[in-house]
Amino acid sequence: MTANSRREFLTRGLALTLATKSLAAQRGYTHAEAEKLLAGGNPNGKLTKDDLCTPALVLELDAFERNIQKMASYVKSKNLSLRPHAKTHKCPDIAKAQIQAGARGICSAKISEAEVFAEHGIRGQLITTAVVGKHKIQRAVQLAGKAPDTIFVVDDENNARELSEAAQASKVNLNVAIDLYFRRTGIEPGAPTVALVEKISKMPRLKLAGLQSYAGYASHTPTWAKRREVSREAMLRAVETRRRLEKSGFEVGFVTGGSTGTYNIDSDVEGMTELQPGSYIFMDVDYNRIGGQDGSEKYTDFDNALFVLTTVVSRPEARKAIVDGGFKAFSTDRSFGPEARDISGIQFSFAGDEHGSLDFSKASRELKVGDRLEFIIPHCDPTVNLYDRVYGVRGDKVEKVWRIAARGMSQ
Amino acid sequence: MTANSRREFLTRGLALTLATKSLAAQRGYTHAEAEKLLAGGNPNGKLTKDDLCTPALVLELDAFERNIQKMASYVKSKNLSLRPHAKTHKCPDIAKAQIQAGARGICSAKISEAEVFAEHGIRGQLITTAVVGKHKIQRAVQLAGKAPDTIFVVDDENNARELSEAAQASKVNLNVAIDLYFRRTGIEPGAPTVALVEKISKMPRLKLAGLQSYAGYASHTPTWAKRREVSREAMLRAVETRRRLEKSGFEVGFVTGGSTGTYNIDSDVEGMTELQPGSYIFMDVDYNRIGGQDGSEKYTDFDNALFVLTTVVSRPEARKAIVDGGFKAFSTDRSFGPEARDISGIQFSFAGDEHGSLDFSKASRELKVGDRLEFIIPHCDPTVNLYDRVYGVRGDKVEKVWRIAARGMSQ
Repeated sequence: MTANSRREFLTRGLALTLATKSLAAQRGYTHAEAEKLLAGGNPNGKLTKDDLCTPALVLELDAFERNIQKMASYVKSKNLSLRPHAKTHKCPDIAKAQIQAGARGICSAKISEAEVFAEHGIRGQLITTAVVGKHKIQRAVQLAGKAPDTIFVVDDENNARELSEAAQASKVNLNVAIDLYFRRTGIEPGAPTVALVEKISKMPRLKLAGLQSYAGYASHTPTWAKRREVSREAMLRAVETRRRLEKSGFEVGFVTGGSTGTYNIDSDVEGMTELQPGSYIFMDVDYNRIGGQDGSEKYTDFDNALFVLTTVVSRPEARKAIVDGGFKAFSTDRSFGPEARDISGIQFSFAGDEHGSLDFSKASRELKVGDRLEFIIPHCDPTVNLYDRVYGVRGDKVEKVWRIAARGMSQ
Repeated sequence: MTANSRREFLTRGLALTLATKSLAAQRGYTHAEAEKLLAGGNPNGKLTKDDLCTPALVLELDAFERNIQKMASYVKSKNLSLRPHAKTHKCPDIAKAQIQAGARGICSAKISEAEVFAEHGIRGQLITTAVVGKHKIQRAVQLAGKAPDTIFVVDDENNARELSEAAQASKVNLNVAIDLYFRRTGIEPGAPTVALVEKISKMPRLKLAGLQSYAGYASHTPTWAKRREVSREAMLRAVETRRRLEKSGFEVGFVTGGSTGTYNIDSDVEGMTELQPGSYIFMDVDYNRIGGQDGSEKYTDFDNALFVLTTVVSRPEARKAIVDGGFKAFSTDRSFGPEARDISGIQFSFAGDEHGSLDFSKASRELKVGDRLEFIIPHCDPTVNLYDRVYGVRGDKVEKVWRIAARGMSQ
């Protein structure tokens, strides 16, 4: 820091102190302090991205709002329902924004995640992992008592029977959706599903709500054409199963599936009634790479809205800089790392739990200790799960701080 | 569930309800409820591993306590200090156990992590990432005011000057350690370090405390012999730098470094004064693979004490089971996945954010929905950072529930 910039900092620090009479303003903000300030309306708009301690999760509200609207309008134009997957964001404020834009509810991955959303007033939840084991089943029954429109997936007769018995004991009804198997969880579509539904139809207190039809392997298949092929193949089996069930006299309220990668593929499968994309609100390096419908290499249907802000903390070699984000700041489940934003030619490599190493020998500018850099994250869902808060920004101004209230709720 | 086991469950549930008059007992425990129960002393020892909702982080206290004692005794026998790295556990209760066993304090990775430990009364902290940026520097000064024995690493003249200026403004002294460069952060050992120390010695309110000498690449180098070679090479440069500084008249209070993989290598480098291993308390698949001093393939100096408990939630194919732990339950920064405990021949593959896929075609037994399986985790530090609590167990009994209070504190 030069003497001039130091004076500027001290002067500015003093001005802020006088303005807000807050120690925090003088020394920057912890996440908790920033949250408190924003709860008070961010007086005078003083909180900017520069005030955030790094690594910080930053959401560009303009892009985020565009993404929310685009998906909602598209699904509406196809006369389908939208139940976005909230495991992506784990954030009640974002769930509310999705519902306000027209979603009928949300998907949650696990019972503990659904409990958090329910506590925040979110209704219309479909829990997409079977609720297994006596403890979780009791939690499911309790949740259904409070939020009767909650739907639970099942794929196993014994598990369904346990749900029914617990529901009877507590005198509540449980809506269930059959989880169809497409390489992960579920029961085979077709005859095995019909047989399971027949058994479930005789179990007291269980009510068939619909079919859960998620083919995760399709979502990230590159080239739109190939993706269309694999996703249609799966979804056609789902809607054919729906027809078989209806022929057997069972009412199937919905067939739900799809993803950010296949929303405009599955929407054209006759018999699908609902889409459950998650990542479209944020986007990530992974989804950027799956290819667009027009044959382009980059998938641009939705805008990158989520970034991790880091700081250069060391400059140990000529063209090497170390930032303060490592395994604990970015997802690591992909073969590729974060991508620098607004500066080209930077190669990120993980350097342990706490650090990332940047090779900037081909970069468009020099990097020095204290520089702040934003990155597009490799995979949004597990990255968000590392943070307690996401900061909503417009330009440099921090407008929102939202709690990732279901962070860590993997039970 | 069979009718018999159901009756048993209902009866047992009833008995528990009568015993504790708690709804929670009847329906199993959320993490928060288990914590409350244990805070009250776990009356009648009723809480067992079976009562934990999965995925759950489980610590075997016998192994954990052996690991703590073994490292403490070893370091003491070498007349060295021990300052274990707490970024591994982020848990004040564990830090206290380490200090009680003889550690002089702990290392923290970041200022926000150190703040949490300080709030819980932990003293003697060395923060191993440079504190960069005006906000964090003010937080450092504030922390030093409360905990004057805190030590901050530096590797950059400008950053050191900013620290000095902030310390002057707040009238506190800051202890600094020079971070030596071994492929990640830091300044080159030798002449560049001496030059930096000369500059720092003229900066008011900064006091040279010692040298931070961590060579992360050495820690996981397989075969003990090779590890010895690379770690010694690095540490010898560190102690040589110490000698040069002392020759120039600077007092060097400590040279700290080392890891779980190199503790019994670095301890024999003359001039090293302190070790800062982290993972030895827990261990993981990664450390199991680095090879022992006796030439064995498996590294057995410390015992596997940390496990993730999961539940089978789907059995979609003949020899395939899906558990409820995926990217959000296990670290994913290694090329290998979790390893099943107590059952051989299981191959784990990640199946997305929420699930793991088990191929048990070569397993020693059948798996069914509801089965609970424990896994050794691929890499302990980033796994622990996914959980809010760790359960300390002895046999099946849950004895402790410890808050991972600095979870998410990557700032």
